[in-house]
Amino acid sequence: MNRFGNRFAITTFGESHGEIIGAVIDGVPSGLNIDLVFIQSEVERRRGGKNSYTTQRKESDEVEILSGVFEGKSTGTPIALIIKNENQKSKDYSNVAQLFRPGHADFTYFHKYGIRDYRGGGRSSARETAVRVGAGAIAKLMLRELNIKFMSGVSFIGGIGKDREYDFEFAKNSEIYSLSPEFENEQKRIIIEAKESHDSVGGIAIVKIINLPIGLGEPLYYKLDSLIADAMMGINGVKAVEIGAGVKSSKSMGSDNNDQILKNGFVTNNAGGVLGGISNGESVDIKIHFKPTPSIFLEQKTIDVFGEEKLLNLKGRHDPTIVVRGSIVAEAMASLVIADLVLLNMGRRIGDLKKCYIN
Amino acid sequence: MNRFGNRFAITTFGESHGEIIGAVIDGVPSGLNIDLVFIQSEVERRRGGKNSYTTQRKESDEVEILSGVFEGKSTGTPIALIIKNENQKSKDYSNVAQLFRPGHADFTYFHKYGIRDYRGGGRSSARETAVRVGAGAIAKLMLRELNIKFMSGVSFIGGIGKDREYDFEFAKNSEIYSLSPEFENEQKRIIIEAKESHDSVGGIAIVKIINLPIGLGEPLYYKLDSLIADAMMGINGVKAVEIGAGVKSSKSMGSDNNDQILKNGFVTNNAGGVLGGISNGESVDIKIHFKPTPSIFLEQKTIDVFGEEKLLNLKGRHDPTIVVRGSIVAEAMASLVIADLVLLNMGRRIGDLKKCYIN
Amino acid sequence: MNRFGNRFAITTFGESHGEIIGAVIDGVPSGLNIDLVFIQSEVERRRGGKNSYTTQRKESDEVEILSGVFEGKSTGTPIALIIKNENQKSKDYSNVAQLFRPGHADFTYFHKYGIRDYRGGGRSSARETAVRVGAGAIAKLMLRELNIKFMSGVSFIGGIGKDREYDFEFAKNSEIYSLSPEFENEQKRIIIEAKESHDSVGGIAIVKIINLPIGLGEPLYYKLDSLIADAMMGINGVKAVEIGAGVKSSKSMGSDNNDQILKNGFVTNNAGGVLGGISNGESVDIKIHFKPTPSIFLEQKTIDVFGEEKLLNLKGRHDPTIVVRGSIVAEAMASLVIADLVLLNMGRRIGDLKKCYIN
Amino acid sequence: MNRFGNRFAITTFGESHGEIIGAVIDGVPSGLNIDLVFIQSEVERRRGGKNSYTTQRKESDEVEILSGVFEGKSTGTPIALIIKNENQKSKDYSNVAQLFRPGHADFTYFHKYGIRDYRGGGRSSARETAVRVGAGAIAKLMLRELNIKFMSGVSFIGGIGKDREYDFEFAKNSEIYSLSPEFENEQKRIIIEAKESHDSVGGIAIVKIINLPIGLGEPLYYKLDSLIADAMMGINGVKAVEIGAGVKSSKSMGSDNNDQILKNGFVTNNAGGVLGGISNGESVDIKIHFKPTPSIFLEQKTIDVFGEEKLLNLKGRHDPTIVVRGSIVAEAMASLVIADLVLLNMGRRIGDLKKCYIN
Repeated sequence: MNRFGNRFAITTFGESHGEIIGAVIDGVPSGLNIDLVFIQSEVERRRGGKNSYTTQRKESDEVEILSGVFEGKSTGTPIALIIKNENQKSKDYSNVAQLFRPGHADFTYFHKYGIRDYRGGGRSSARETAVRVGAGAIAKLMLRELNIKFMSGVSFIGGIGKDREYDFEFAKNSEIYSLSPEFENEQKRIIIEAKESHDSVGGIAIVKIINLPIGLGEPLYYKLDSLIADAMMGINGVKAVEIGAGVKSSKSMGSDNNDQILKNGFVTNNAGGVLGGISNGESVDIKIHFKPTPSIFLEQKTIDVFGEEKLLNLKGRHDPTIVVRGSIVAEAMASLVIADLVLLNMGRRIGDLKKCYIN
Repeated sequence: MNRFGNRFAITTFGESHGEIIGAVIDGVPSGLNIDLVFIQSEVERRRGGKNSYTTQRKESDEVEILSGVFEGKSTGTPIALIIKNENQKSKDYSNVAQLFRPGHADFTYFHKYGIRDYRGGGRSSARETAVRVGAGAIAKLMLRELNIKFMSGVSFIGGIGKDREYDFEFAKNSEIYSLSPEFENEQKRIIIEAKESHDSVGGIAIVKIINLPIGLGEPLYYKLDSLIADAMMGINGVKAVEIGAGVKSSKSMGSDNNDQILKNGFVTNNAGGVLGGISNGESVDIKIHFKPTPSIFLEQKTIDVFGEEKLLNLKGRHDPTIVVRGSIVAEAMASLVIADLVLLNMGRRIGDLKKCYIN
Repeated sequence: MNRFGNRFAITTFGESHGEIIGAVIDGVPSGLNIDLVFIQSEVERRRGGKNSYTTQRKESDEVEILSGVFEGKSTGTPIALIIKNENQKSKDYSNVAQLFRPGHADFTYFHKYGIRDYRGGGRSSARETAVRVGAGAIAKLMLRELNIKFMSGVSFIGGIGKDREYDFEFAKNSEIYSLSPEFENEQKRIIIEAKESHDSVGGIAIVKIINLPIGLGEPLYYKLDSLIADAMMGINGVKAVEIGAGVKSSKSMGSDNNDQILKNGFVTNNAGGVLGGISNGESVDIKIHFKPTPSIFLEQKTIDVFGEEKLLNLKGRHDPTIVVRGSIVAEAMASLVIADLVLLNMGRRIGDLKKCYIN
Repeated sequence: MNRFGNRFAITTFGESHGEIIGAVIDGVPSGLNIDLVFIQSEVERRRGGKNSYTTQRKESDEVEILSGVFEGKSTGTPIALIIKNENQKSKDYSNVAQLFRPGHADFTYFHKYGIRDYRGGGRSSARETAVRVGAGAIAKLMLRELNIKFMSGVSFIGGIGKDREYDFEFAKNSEIYSLSPEFENEQKRIIIEAKESHDSVGGIAIVKIINLPIGLGEPLYYKLDSLIADAMMGINGVKAVEIGAGVKSSKSMGSDNNDQILKNGFVTNNAGGVLGGISNGESVDIKIHFKPTPSIFLEQKTIDVFGEEKLLNLKGRHDPTIVVRGSIVAEAMASLVIADLVLLNMGRRIGDLKKCYIN
């Protein structure tokens, strides 16, 4: 089940070691300017190999669009978007070919499908998320027309950072997408320390959506917040998702947590922009907790495909933390959710039908 | 979009003020004993009015099954399950009929659908979750055949409790489903205090699933953990969902967070039973953060449907905390997710087809 | 899989021998007047027992709406519609309890689900189509707002009738919904003859949809014509579906079959209102071929559930032809398809989004 | 909505004038031998340019598989299959660029999406069906494991042929896939005559499925026959679909049409292998009516995009009849439907779960 979304839906394909990864984007309205420069710039934000805080593996991640666009505009037919893999060449796997890597999906894929693909993450690799970002860029192009905007960044690395006054402008230019000028250096240091000790470190990403119209979300089982949770938890390495006050709300009293209402809007936004699964016009605030990269270069206990206990010593190049590049994927997934809900919300009232069909 | 699930799917209907709430359960295999006593006992666990820690509103919540069962067994056709509402009678709403209640969905429903139903939560009321619990009971009956089991309870009320050594047996008999004998009294006290001060309080529920076969979860977009997140975040009042180490993993190092592997299983279970979105055979550990009940009896600022600022003084009977009854709903939603994935997982290997079709 | 439709979707439940049959209708926009008198009148058109050309079994088929409507208007939440069964009482089945009825689904249901429900058609009974008609009436109420209209009737009974100049007004008042004043009597005679000889007879129904906007249909796999074919072939007893020139087009030349185009529309309508799976603004013309009722009262060869050869002598009351009441079901299914496509078509162009979201 | 199928599902993309057409095949069980030679041979059967009865346009139609296969076997991840377009180069469209072609979808696409792509059929072109055949070949590889087999051919061209004693072996080697050795020459003559008179001609294709297990089909809204109808009516140029006795059953009596049952099977097969939407173990017999190719080279009346009346004189190379190559597409679509239903049928009984999960 490699499809995400209902009306604005992506179907992705491809593995980390294959020739290509791709997404087919279904449901893009016709007449949208498909700005390739923007799409490429979004994919670029997720690309590794740009500095010492992410993997040293370099791929050019050039986006190609194979269908659904004519003279620069979407035609209403599916848009196929692909990115070639450049680093999929076989290397020497002999020392790890039979060993399950702790924290990785090779154990579960092997048991589910009975296939041992020793060459790496395959389908479960975060490589696939590059096309989510490409597809998300198209969602953003559509949502720009309604002035809906997305922001993201990293609030914490290994417990260091702060949980307020996020500086999204600063994050854009930070090598680690840090949301805090005053914590960026320390956060960088933690990443480098993890890397130098052959270890990895977790972190927290923030996504914020603004200018949403009131009314997005299809209760009871395609709610805005439940879709966000689905989208975020499905990203590689995510172990917790919060909306609005999130974890904190479980410790609070109703009188503190309720967002009272004034003429010009809600007094607070503990709800994180969602009431009853429907957007209330406030910003949607999402917090995403990423585990540390499971690929570490310290010796670990594991078993091989025959069930024998072994010691694993990984080699290679990996991100010392997932959250940096993961924050971009989270922002992309948020844009896919919103694009879907924007289309689904049309036709919610009988008056909308008349507006659309009768001039 | 009132359907949840793909192969084992529920479609629910009904509002808190209508005659009836119901669920149509589609995909139940034929030949399953539909144990009505068990189903009723599950619904009973969610029912309010049993003690002073939940709402004083009493409904008998008697489950009726209208289709899909013949001589006590499922027939493979859809099972319609209904519960009558007994407390939906109109009362005097004149003082709040035009006012939006902070923390409630009436604001968003009104703006989305253009309808003002002043009689209460309507479709957005937690009343609907009663049929989720009924449907979840049928899922559990099916999963029992594979020995899969579900446990739940409340770990924290208003920040009080502990995050380890959950006593699920104790929780079963606790009036507040507390997982901690040593914290139960204090937790009860907090609830009563909230109630007496006309306020409400948040809390944390835990769901644990054991004996899952390895292999459940359909990557990349119908993963076990992303579905769990979807299911849990969609429950009324939930603001955060964690799997396994969850929030903690974002603060940890890979060498601590990775679950190393021995012959007889994983050394730790920070993954919470899921790797790459697929069950790994360990218990699935879920933590669900509920906000305080939004219905409080302190004066609050709000606006009316005309946008005028007003003061709201609610009256009535409400749960002082959602998490107690919410924990039962969370357990039910978990069972629906697993039932769906159990069916979807069949046919994952070509060998399964032969096993199923060729004797 | 008891759901039909994507955005305007029904989930049905119930068996012929149960207490109730029902449909949950999901996706009805809010603010629609739910005219119960109209809905009941539509269901009445399908009801048997009104004359000697249909079954003598009488059920009052009273529609009840249990949710989704407030003060006479749809609220945007699911509408549950039920009809009670009145004739489901157990009778003496001893002579046929173990025998498969030729032309019926009991053979396949038994082999698929392993359940022998000897009391009749159960889920496979045409009884269920009563709620399709009820749901279709709600679809029609919605489509009336766009002036879309549906007509139906019976063109042939047992090969007698004509394939042109359908008189839909006449059909409305004909006891057999005949489209031909000059053939009605002969058609009635054939039905009575079939009945008196303990046999049954097949026939052809016509459905016509007018005033469709251009553009309905979601290529390539949710086309207007393929959905119509799906909807019609899924009705009990249907064995062939034609659109426009249908079967005839397979015998014709392109120069005859192509519909040339003038300023004010297409010169002919061999396409039946659909080009490339999308409505072209002409009437959608559908022809549906019903087999004879499989329940006949002549001795037939069959086997029992143990595989032993037996002779079957059915008793009871059945329609001597399916097509009469089936034509009403076909019209209802057409309205469900169009309601779904009307909603799906919103958001096809980027300009529609602005129209809907930006004032 | 460019996805077909539920568990075994294809998502297709690409237009006739783009670089590439493709399909992502989701739900293929792991461990299946992906026999590229077979897949290519199937696509070859649909390819034009091989003789004078189909288009003279030649494309090599070489299938490439980009994902989902490792060491020759399916891995359980999505299989992306592409075919490059070789003839998509721009030619001189100036004389027809603004004119709608009668019988074509350019009229409806233009009105739906507001885009005028003058270069040809684009997404609505039958070109896309090449990847359906590729995907269908993978479905067949899976179904071979259960010994399920598919046959097809052409029974009538322009009304010439016969409706019995189909010779599927003969059809395989016939240039026009004719099912009748005694009619093949006359059928060929009709095609050539149509071609030489710059016209086109309709025809009928037959698909037969054998060795189906009893029980395929998910009532009530994912029935075997309704899915077949959907799949067939969605093929370019199809205007009618029949199952079993089809059209004939609407003229017959129940005593003739019912298939009586003996120990070793049904006496006749008027049902066409389907009862109540579920396979009954007999062969599934499908008849598909194709209209004549709409691209003819006789002058036709039409309008341009500005609504002005014009005369259209098409030039180019087109199939004089769709049915020949269309029969191969129909066979492929049938295999996709069956693959989907085979997977969906697993888990129909509680006993199947135990068989699959408990050794």
